[in-house]
Amino acid sequence: MALDAWVNESLYPAWGQRFRIKRELARAKSAYQDIVIFESESHGRVLMLDGVVQITEADEFVYQEMLVHVPLIAHGAAERVLIIGAGDGGVLRRVLEHGGVRRAVMVEIDAEVIRLAREFLPGIGGAAWQDPRAEVIVGDGIAYVAEAVNAAFDVVIVDSTDPIGVGEVLFTETFYAHAARILSPRGVVVNQCGVPFLQGEELIETSRRRSKSFPHVSAYLVAVPTYVGGFMALGWAAKDGSLTGLPVAEIERRAAAAGILGRTRYWTPEIHAGAFCLPPYIAELLP
Amino acid sequence: MALDAWVNESLYPAWGQRFRIKRELARAKSAYQDIVIFESESHGRVLMLDGVVQITEADEFVYQEMLVHVPLIAHGAAERVLIIGAGDGGVLRRVLEHGGVRRAVMVEIDAEVIRLAREFLPGIGGAAWQDPRAEVIVGDGIAYVAEAVNAAFDVVIVDSTDPIGVGEVLFTETFYAHAARILSPRGVVVNQCGVPFLQGEELIETSRRRSKSFPHVSAYLVAVPTYVGGFMALGWAAKDGSLTGLPVAEIERRAAAAGILGRTRYWTPEIHAGAFCLPPYIAELLP
Repeated sequence: MALDAWVNESLYPAWGQRFRIKRELARAKSAYQDIVIFESESHGRVLMLDGVVQITEADEFVYQEMLVHVPLIAHGAAERVLIIGAGDGGVLRRVLEHGGVRRAVMVEIDAEVIRLAREFLPGIGGAAWQDPRAEVIVGDGIAYVAEAVNAAFDVVIVDSTDPIGVGEVLFTETFYAHAARILSPRGVVVNQCGVPFLQGEELIETSRRRSKSFPHVSAYLVAVPTYVGGFMALGWAAKDGSLTGLPVAEIERRAAAAGILGRTRYWTPEIHAGAFCLPPYIAELLP
Repeated sequence: MALDAWVNESLYPAWGQRFRIKRELARAKSAYQDIVIFESESHGRVLMLDGVVQITEADEFVYQEMLVHVPLIAHGAAERVLIIGAGDGGVLRRVLEHGGVRRAVMVEIDAEVIRLAREFLPGIGGAAWQDPRAEVIVGDGIAYVAEAVNAAFDVVIVDSTDPIGVGEVLFTETFYAHAARILSPRGVVVNQCGVPFLQGEELIETSRRRSKSFPHVSAYLVAVPTYVGGFMALGWAAKDGSLTGLPVAEIERRAAAAGILGRTRYWTPEIHAGAFCLPPYIAELLP
């Protein structure tokens, strides 16, 4: 790749973002996807899978904090967390920041993503890879949930690619049925559901599937700089309706107890509470 | 321009968005800037000034609703509104949706923007151009505020380009001093302050300038799909500190009285209230 070259994201056929790259760091074709890591001029290092931006060093905190802290704080006493995907290690790191978490299992299908992220994006996962509470499994997320025992987890976090290609099975009715089975009574599953302004169908369709196994299905929002197109929706499916709508003071109390208060750059108790308020253009996509 | 060509936004040197265009509709070099309007495949028609996206038909409601409804509802009894810039007519249209507004003065420096927007983006301004409460002036915003009488307006809305080039004078200490003078005691001025993730200096510097003339300076947020890079900050400067922090029920009551409740696709009372809660990475940029 020539110096001063631009990388064009290929997520949408007629619109997208582009980065000027300083240098390419890694390029691999795994059994599942094309993996590229490059150093950008504007956003630090960038991981792309099949031409779609997964993470940049500059803004990873936005997505990770909201994907992790919202369900864990909303649950209030999560000890056992299952992470599916998230091979870069960023979700694992945020989960382990919660003092009450005793076990975090991460199931990533692509060993190459883990290997390359640990080599070229070491700050994303940080010390989480060595944490004794972490169990990192290279394997198939749908197979893992099918085999896991009932009520084994308090929170399930799905940090996958969009529901096309390798990530598709993580958005099926079968997946959500297993998620409901392996979650404890206050359990919640969250997963990224794309940018509704451009991928509205993704939120509509996956919410419908979540509704088959969970009585409380909604979404919350985060403005991720490099998931361009306005708000990204994070899908929410819970057994217990009392997990959302918490007062800000209670969210703050739990965050202090968990040890995350004051350590975040995007998540705050107020933003946590407000993230469930959806603009009408997004609310109309939900069941 | 060839069919199937891409238009690259030139706002940032090393990152940006691009659109595939169906056809170019207008291209002009006015006394102030380069103006291009094209039909995109993904976002309807798009207006660019000096290579920077100003508005698209698909997402204009997001920015316009938040720029207009938040200050007008927060004021609660705004009758006289000054709009600076916003030559496309979209802000004027939203201002005139408020039943209590008796007079809306719009001062746009570039007659070519108005002419081309009315011809090629007629839905943006809609019937506002003919509203008897509207006064559209082609002129210099800084000269207008310098000549306006004391306490002539309840709300001033600055919808300009970034504080470079033609928009620069609308972010000076002189401008804010005049804005404070021509606003009534409950008056508020709002203006777009860029995307803090990428243009943090813009929010820092303009907030500092607003602080010289207003005791209550903050910002609120909106996730505009085509102002890429996460949240955009809308700068807030008021004489009265009670305009923010309103309960959601009061915001809703005022919106119903104004006639905008249920007519919006992004703004809601909850989103209005939540928009003033800033992630730490943005809050740290304010005075």
